[in-house]
Order: sequence, then C-alpha cells, then structure tokens
Amino acid sequence: MRQAGRYLPEYREIRKDAGTFLDLCYTPDLAAEVTLQPIRRYGFDAAIIFSDILVIPDALGQPVSFKEGVGPVLETIRTVEELASLDQNRLSEHLDPVYEALRKTRRDLSEETTLIGFAGAPWTVATYMVEGGTSRDFANTKRWAFSAPQEFGKLIDILVASITKHLIAQVEAGADALQIFDSWAGMLPETAFDQWCVDPISRIISGVKKEKPDVPIIVFPRLAGYRYLKIAALEGVSAVSLDQTVSLDWVQRNLQNKVTVQGNLDPIYLLAGGDAMRAEAERILETLSGGPFIFNLGHGVLPPTPLDNVAELCEIVSGWQR
Amino acid sequence: MRQAGRYLPEYREIRKDAGTFLDLCYTPDLAAEVTLQPIRRYGFDAAIIFSDILVIPDALGQPVSFKEGVGPVLETIRTVEELASLDQNRLSEHLDPVYEALRKTRRDLSEETTLIGFAGAPWTVATYMVEGGTSRDFANTKRWAFSAPQEFGKLIDILVASITKHLIAQVEAGADALQIFDSWAGMLPETAFDQWCVDPISRIISGVKKEKPDVPIIVFPRLAGYRYLKIAALEGVSAVSLDQTVSLDWVQRNLQNKVTVQGNLDPIYLLAGGDAMRAEAERILETLSGGPFIFNLGHGVLPPTPLDNVAELCEIVSGWQR
Repeated sequence: MRQAGRYLPEYREIRKDAGTFLDLCYTPDLAAEVTLQPIRRYGFDAAIIFSDILVIPDALGQPVSFKEGVGPVLETIRTVEELASLDQNRLSEHLDPVYEALRKTRRDLSEETTLIGFAGAPWTVATYMVEGGTSRDFANTKRWAFSAPQEFGKLIDILVASITKHLIAQVEAGADALQIFDSWAGMLPETAFDQWCVDPISRIISGVKKEKPDVPIIVFPRLAGYRYLKIAALEGVSAVSLDQTVSLDWVQRNLQNKVTVQGNLDPIYLLAGGDAMRAEAERILETLSGGPFIFNLGHGVLPPTPLDNVAELCEIVSGWQR
Repeated sequence: MRQAGRYLPEYREIRKDAGTFLDLCYTPDLAAEVTLQPIRRYGFDAAIIFSDILVIPDALGQPVSFKEGVGPVLETIRTVEELASLDQNRLSEHLDPVYEALRKTRRDLSEETTLIGFAGAPWTVATYMVEGGTSRDFANTKRWAFSAPQEFGKLIDILVASITKHLIAQVEAGADALQIFDSWAGMLPETAFDQWCVDPISRIISGVKKEKPDVPIIVFPRLAGYRYLKIAALEGVSAVSLDQTVSLDWVQRNLQNKVTVQGNLDPIYLLAGGDAMRAEAERILETLSGGPFIFNLGHGVLPPTPLDNVAELCEIVSGWQR
C-alpha cells in the first residue's frame, strides 16, 4: 500500500517545506526522494511512486486541493454538460512531473527493487469528481450512475482513456509494475459493480497490455468481498491486493489458484505492535505463503505508527519459514 | 432498515419541536408516533421502533449528543479504568421511555403488522464509545481490541449484558421480533471478526433466547461479505439483513438454505426512482423470492428521497409474482 507517508519523520521534514500536497507530487526531485525514503529505511522489495489518484481530474482541468482534516476538495461535476470542461489534451504535459519523478526514482533505486506506478480506477476517481471530495454514501455519484448510465458512462469513458494513457506513460518512465486502486469498489451493488468497476478496469487493462504486454498489473477492488473473484478472473490481472476484511481461507481456496494475492494485515496491528501484530502476521503468512503471495498491509500505514513496529514486522516477514 | 426518518414531512414536523434527537427517542408519545407514520403512509409489513443504537452508552452514563452535520458525539472511553464510570444499574430506568414507546406502538398498530425492537451489536456500539463518534478507520477501538483484548473484552462484556437486557425488555414491552445492527462488523479483520462480532452476538442471542425462546432475531453484520456465513450459522439466528454489496447469487446458494434473508436494494435506487429502481428491485425479487425472503433496503432511506418513489417501490414489491 502507500509506502511513503506521514509516519516517517524524514517525510514530514520534506513535506513541511514543499508547499501543497500536489506541489510535492509535481516536484520530481522531492517526489522521488519521498518514494525512496522508506526503501532506504526498511529495504522493502518494492517502491510505489509518490503521487495521488486525483492527479487525473487535476490534469483534466478539474483542480484538486487538499484541506487539512477534510481531505481532497474539488468543484463538482454532475452533468454531461459539465464534462465539456475536461480536456484530455492537457494530460501528458500536466503529468510530466510524475513521469520525471519515476525516471529519477528508477535511476536511484537498486535493480532488485521493483518500482510500482499506479492510478485510481474510474469509479473511485469519479466519486471524488462528482461528490467534490470524500463521501459517506456516494449519493450523487450513484444517483447519476443508476439513473443516467449513458451520461455517467461518458465520464467513465474519459477516465478509462486518461487512466490508460497515464499508466502506459508510467511504464515508459520506468515503472516495472502497475497498480489500480478501486478504493470504493465495495460500495457498489452487484449490477453496478460489473458495470462501473469490472468493465472499466478490464478496458484499461486491455489498453495498457496492447502497448505494454509484459507489465504486471495489480488490482485493488477494496471491500469487494466475494466479488474479488470477478477481478481475479479478468484477462491480464497478475495480482489482487486484499483489504483486511477478506477471509484468508476463502482467498486461499478461491483466488490464489488464479492470481497472486497481496495483503492483508490491518494497519492497526502495525500501530499496536507486540504479540498481536506478530500473531496476525504469522497467521497471514501461514495461510497464504503456500501459493503466489506478496506480504502487505490491507490499507495504508497510519501516521502515528511507531517506526520500530515497521522494522519488527519486516523482520517477522523476512525471517519467516514455512 | 430505518423506516422512520427525515424523508417524511410528517416526521420533520414532529422533529422540529421535539428538542434533541434523543429527547425524541425518550418521549414515548412522539417516538410511537414517528414509528407509526411510515406504516400509515405506506402500509409496510413491519414497523421498527424509533430509537437509536446509542441509547445504550447514554443509559450506562456516557452521555450522547447529536451534532448537526457531524453525527453523535460522546466523551471517549479508552482505558479499563474509565469503564468504572459505566453503571449498568441505571439501564432499565433510563430506557423505560423506549419500552413505553413500544407498548404504545404495539397498542396502536394493527395485529398483522410486526413490531421490531432493536439494538446495536457490542462491536459497533463500542466503536462510538471509544472513538467518541463516527470514525474513518476505528484506529483507537481496534488498537485497544488488538493489543489488550482482555481489557477491551471488559467493555464488550458490559455491552453484551446491557444489550441482552435491553432486548429482553423490548420483547416484554411488545416487540414481536428483534434486530441486532452490527454496522461496522465489516471493518474487522478475520480473527477479530470472530472475537468481537460473532462471539458477542452469539452470547446475546443465547441470553435473549433463554428468556424469550420464540422471538425471531435478525442480525445485520453490515459489509461482512463472505463472513455472513458465520452469522447465518449461529444458533438462534432467524434471519440476516443483507447490505447492498452482497452478491445475490451467492446469497441464494449459501445463505438462503440456512436462514431467511432480508434486503438489499441500494437506497440510492430509491432516490433515483424510475426504470433503474424497477429493474434493480425486480432483479432482487427474481433472485431471492424462491426461498425465505423479506424485501428491504440495504441501508436506510436517504432524506431527499421522493415520497412517490417509495410508493412505487411498494407497488412493485407487493404486485410482483414469480
């Protein structure tokens, strides 16, 4: 998951002088530096580029800001007419600093360390664009999607095209693997899940694979439960990220025979540390390490997480033997 | 789900003069009246008593208030020492207005209409008591539960005892069935789900059934996904409420052979209305009406829902033939 972030003092040091959160994302030297920080400290197997899923609306001409204690803030888009304000031609130039950060990071990273590029999935990015920020019930986005699927589909089409382009550009800039975050996939009811989570992701994967057939793609349909099956069944998906609510015996029997799985320690165990963290990490390792598996968290590291707990978890995982 | 509420003008009329939200819950005449309002207007098969899951901490001596646009606000409890401030002896007297509202509602309700009493499950109620309100990540509650399970277990024990008592008292006051809401069950990782969702609910059900062996009990482990199986397998569970994210074909094959299922139209369809609502309602009816099934929403009715959509949905459901 997010491997750079507010739990590292060296990150906070850079963050405080970097301007806004998006300024940091768009300043290649600094974005590369904070991408490398956790690798230097803990020697993880992979680095994920420091960026945000909302660079896409920002690049399309729907400016994004981050308000302390609130989260992202955007002017809402809720009609097909308002889609006219989005301009896909701005994308490459606007996102060039992200690609520059990838090039720089790839140069400075050791060969054995994988560099992951990423994007939000269309449904999740659309919720922010329609709601104007985070949401409790996604009422505006769902209402639009349910009652005018063809119009809402135009927004999804723009996002499919933009995200595909952004992912391909990240591979060209040095990303060794890609991850697609559909953080709010689990909030969709069944038919809508197929239409607005599975289908757009499948189109993105086809588009990326046409240009970059060998790049591994990891998909994170957060809180999708049983419906992880539908994502794992998609052509071109190499791995799925598991949120912390998925049952591991079910994963072992139903997903691991199809794709690599990655996850799923609840980040609160990393906050708590001690015996609880060890027991839970070992349970995950015991259940999943017999098949294709990447140990990871179920969600991002929380800011007050003690650094020693992260180090201890790394030791538990790297020292573990089946 | 919540069948009284802000979408009814007659509710808003009463609400505006009733003082705080909890004042309304604790005024038997008004609580009974708003319980009956949707039954009068739409003739639903069942009424659910107008109350709140947070009357339990309020009754135990951890006062609850509701802040407009924020939600419930409580002084936090985060240590085993702070549990000393909770007093179970206050419970019956403090909650007597709820029981009086049930008695009154049962008298005024036609015999064919079921009256449902309810409570929050211990895990969900505990999250509000520990976080001091709603939460995004439940970090304080989970940290306490994961790192000091015996201490956190003392809070859960108090809640198991209080909720059991509250549910029995509701049956004595006229409730024909009971529903247990574990709204945040789905946020627990696997081991913790067994420990803090399944086990406390199972203890509550045993306790209630000892006194009231015939009362049907519905459990709502929201967002539990695949783990709905664990709740459906519990002795004494008559039905499970399905949130809108559960796959219906899976439900039909795996849950409906064990218990009655209730759900799961996304309330946003009710907001949207029209063909989308009809198609989705019919899909649910087609998939689930071959077994034991109660048509319902996957979550509460949203305040801006048009009243005509509710009437139309009632017609779709009552006129539907397999």
